[in-house]
Amino acid sequence: MSLLLKLSCPDRVGLLASIAGCIAKYGGNLLEVHQFTDSQAKWFFTRMTIETIQVNLPELRAEFEVMARGFDAEWTIRASDSRMKVILMVSKLGHCLADLLWRWRSGELAFDIPCVISNHEDFRSIVEREGIEFHHVPVEPGNKAAAFDEVARLVRRSAPDLVVLARYMQVVPAELCAEFRGRIMNIHHSFLPSFVGANPYQRAYERGVKLIGATCHYATEELDAGPIVDQEVIRVEHFHTPEDLVRIGRDCERLALARSVRWHLDDRVLIHGNKSIVFRD
Amino acid sequence: MSLLLKLSCPDRVGLLASIAGCIAKYGGNLLEVHQFTDSQAKWFFTRMTIETIQVNLPELRAEFEVMARGFDAEWTIRASDSRMKVILMVSKLGHCLADLLWRWRSGELAFDIPCVISNHEDFRSIVEREGIEFHHVPVEPGNKAAAFDEVARLVRRSAPDLVVLARYMQVVPAELCAEFRGRIMNIHHSFLPSFVGANPYQRAYERGVKLIGATCHYATEELDAGPIVDQEVIRVEHFHTPEDLVRIGRDCERLALARSVRWHLDDRVLIHGNKSIVFRD
Amino acid sequence: MSLLLKLSCPDRVGLLASIAGCIAKYGGNLLEVHQFTDSQAKWFFTRMTIETIQVNLPELRAEFEVMARGFDAEWTIRASDSRMKVILMVSKLGHCLADLLWRWRSGELAFDIPCVISNHEDFRSIVEREGIEFHHVPVEPGNKAAAFDEVARLVRRSAPDLVVLARYMQVVPAELCAEFRGRIMNIHHSFLPSFVGANPYQRAYERGVKLIGATCHYATEELDAGPIVDQEVIRVEHFHTPEDLVRIGRDCERLALARSVRWHLDDRVLIHGNKSIVFRD
Amino acid sequence: MSLLLKLSCPDRVGLLASIAGCIAKYGGNLLEVHQFTDSQAKWFFTRMTIETIQVNLPELRAEFEVMARGFDAEWTIRASDSRMKVILMVSKLGHCLADLLWRWRSGELAFDIPCVISNHEDFRSIVEREGIEFHHVPVEPGNKAAAFDEVARLVRRSAPDLVVLARYMQVVPAELCAEFRGRIMNIHHSFLPSFVGANPYQRAYERGVKLIGATCHYATEELDAGPIVDQEVIRVEHFHTPEDLVRIGRDCERLALARSVRWHLDDRVLIHGNKSIVFRD
Repeated sequence: MSLLLKLSCPDRVGLLASIAGCIAKYGGNLLEVHQFTDSQAKWFFTRMTIETIQVNLPELRAEFEVMARGFDAEWTIRASDSRMKVILMVSKLGHCLADLLWRWRSGELAFDIPCVISNHEDFRSIVEREGIEFHHVPVEPGNKAAAFDEVARLVRRSAPDLVVLARYMQVVPAELCAEFRGRIMNIHHSFLPSFVGANPYQRAYERGVKLIGATCHYATEELDAGPIVDQEVIRVEHFHTPEDLVRIGRDCERLALARSVRWHLDDRVLIHGNKSIVFRD
Repeated sequence: MSLLLKLSCPDRVGLLASIAGCIAKYGGNLLEVHQFTDSQAKWFFTRMTIETIQVNLPELRAEFEVMARGFDAEWTIRASDSRMKVILMVSKLGHCLADLLWRWRSGELAFDIPCVISNHEDFRSIVEREGIEFHHVPVEPGNKAAAFDEVARLVRRSAPDLVVLARYMQVVPAELCAEFRGRIMNIHHSFLPSFVGANPYQRAYERGVKLIGATCHYATEELDAGPIVDQEVIRVEHFHTPEDLVRIGRDCERLALARSVRWHLDDRVLIHGNKSIVFRD
Repeated sequence: MSLLLKLSCPDRVGLLASIAGCIAKYGGNLLEVHQFTDSQAKWFFTRMTIETIQVNLPELRAEFEVMARGFDAEWTIRASDSRMKVILMVSKLGHCLADLLWRWRSGELAFDIPCVISNHEDFRSIVEREGIEFHHVPVEPGNKAAAFDEVARLVRRSAPDLVVLARYMQVVPAELCAEFRGRIMNIHHSFLPSFVGANPYQRAYERGVKLIGATCHYATEELDAGPIVDQEVIRVEHFHTPEDLVRIGRDCERLALARSVRWHLDDRVLIHGNKSIVFRD
Repeated sequence: MSLLLKLSCPDRVGLLASIAGCIAKYGGNLLEVHQFTDSQAKWFFTRMTIETIQVNLPELRAEFEVMARGFDAEWTIRASDSRMKVILMVSKLGHCLADLLWRWRSGELAFDIPCVISNHEDFRSIVEREGIEFHHVPVEPGNKAAAFDEVARLVRRSAPDLVVLARYMQVVPAELCAEFRGRIMNIHHSFLPSFVGANPYQRAYERGVKLIGATCHYATEELDAGPIVDQEVIRVEHFHTPEDLVRIGRDCERLALARSVRWHLDDRVLIHGNKSIVFRD
């Protein structure tokens, strides 16, 4: 059996020794340890993969609880084979949805999908043929508040570990971002902070950039300004039309999103302020 | 002998046939042909490397002159072994200067250096030991106009084909940018249009980006907004400090600048409006 | 209407002028011209996109025929919206198949699929639900010759413009490679010429490389030695297991294959000896 | 003050707890911890940066000594500002030498250079003007043994922490590789294991690869087969001549070598069998 621990707290001497000592006391073997100390913020971050033969998890957790309270730490510990619940949201561009579904179906990414939510009907059959619930919640200029009440209801009902905006193309209300802080992940089709907002590929074309990109970040109250998890770029040239950029960029979006989802599922991302600490694999 | 032709003009049927026909008539063999038609702007761009045994260049040029006038074309034709004159400008960060000097001295890049201009004395010995003229033109808050008059005088005196702002760190006055339009190249230490202006690495750090970059562009009246020639990026992580970003970014800057200079020297860059057509090698 | 011309022949003076002249005579406008002269081999290669309003294609073709014969040229000309026929072959790893099917279904890549051939039944439903014929041709140690006779029969029946070995995992007989020379494309899961043959990821792991890759090439009589169309790499680290390399490599394989197929469909690949000239888009 | 610890040993439960505990006992704060457990080899690797106010280093070292003996560990601990001694060896291609000298002179890389050894006189002035000893040891077909005796003498005399073969172009004798195992670093101008041995760029050209690269590895008895520290690649196209590949490849070589040297200087590389564990920064 294998456990995943992630923890962050104000820095002080002896943190790693205390944590590793507690784990060793329960016979846990540390397969993978990541640690980062932010010297400016004086903050400590760690993630550990712990191999255990016959650990008494509740007992370990109880002792850990006491120790972590002393550190003023935020932390989670869970079995590495427990599956996160991930809701996917999409509009009319299906490449990220299709990519995640393929990685899910093939077992490359292990998670459960309570449902897919879309403001359009386009992907109902693609989703339902995989045996996944599909909810159509139209979002029109006049009904935004009601629509997002319904979205919020559907999301809350599943208590997901992650909501992926897989090219959802609607601005999610600030309250929802706040309620699910650190659990809503968006793929933006530009190399942020370039081209925040709408039509980034068209604007990249007009500016004549020589590289385009995609950015996966957690959604916050401010549009396209949340903690960045991953970015991907690809070279383009003068002969690429805005339509070419859209096509070429799709591969950036898919890759940046798939990696980011993977790291979230693996408890590899810790958020601090407006930044992500990502212990990449 | 080998000639370089570069030409741009409004698009119409038969342009390439006319140009290639004129060259063939004079016994020129086309070693390398690049052509791009901007369908939106309806503009035609070409660059050709022409191998000639015993071409009568003045005669070819005269006939070309007539034809090009009919096309309303901007064009140049020159011997590929004629050496451009390139002035280098630098402040207190010498990595781009050192890189260009190495490529120049080793013959990787073939050009002449009328002089190096700096607002500091730091690199005088490094420059002079290569047998290159070094001019110190201090730029202080109180003397900017006078300083740039002197810079302009030094530049005009050499009639350079290119002025490289190799981390010059001073905003070049708009009139000078206009006078040498398409001949002043700047390396900006961010992935434009992200982080226009000062301290891009610090701002990249604060935003928590996962890739940093450098952009080489022609200087225009508007800061960091001129036609982009090349961009380069490199992956960074949460543990990189602002100082790390400065260090890592230096390699991006060097590479993007060296390639851009190479393409300018090879007549591979054509400017149209605020964009560069770059026939990469 | 738009035409695609691709042509290669021994180099001589005036080729481009003759070709462009012939096209201009019929009112064709050259939207995109690529030309490459191999100075060592003294060989000329070109690809052109020709915009035509009301070209008389049979007449153009007839005149072109005469001219090209004089050049001793290999060439094709076709409407850019004519769709190639592409047969996909796969074994038990479906990521490349799924990726190509997605790009096909979404219209990103425009081609027709006469059938999918596999030595296993695994992907029958995935293929048939797209309305595509699926043929199961088992290949066992004892029946290889018979199996490939059946494969050859299925392939010949469709007269495809391309056969994609999308992780087919069987060595295609030399006669078949010869018969469909330049029309069988394989994706090999290493950065060739490293790790020719079986188990490249395991061998990459054992060698401790820091980058893994994938190579798309035309199949020839010699295993993994045909003309390379594209390669893709990605960074790996000491902590990646052989299973991680397999997972990470899948994205390289998908990307290199999708680009290569795209370029073949667009007549952007010209083969000369054991190399590919690729006029990338 | 800051210490660097690197340690490897057979894996067992409680290693990290013991090590971190010992450091905490002496008031050391762990700024950066890297740990890797090779599950196949059952081997444990770690590197730590330890911040100490007034640590009693001899006392810490003595206690560590006892603990490490119990683990059967290989380990080093040293002040992070102690400077390694690095000998540079070069033949007639100076780009890697010039690059390392620039990084050394500017302080980007902190190390001491006891001397530069070359089998040619070409770079004497470049080296001596930096105030560095230069030794010319000609290597001719008839005098190889004597030449390398002299090289060995010069190297031993300085007891270097690293010898960099910065395009030295001579095969270093097996005994010398064995004597300085893990301390001789070579930059090979191909993407290993492709193109082991001589003329890799020419062979890459002939094979028609679409990416070329460079590999930095420790020299061992077997040519180009030692533990790989870093690799770098860059895209090339059909129009690149062998001379172009040489030029383009230089930037790959410089980057892969500079990073590898940096990591060695920072105690970020641990060798195990024929592989390198690299805790990248």
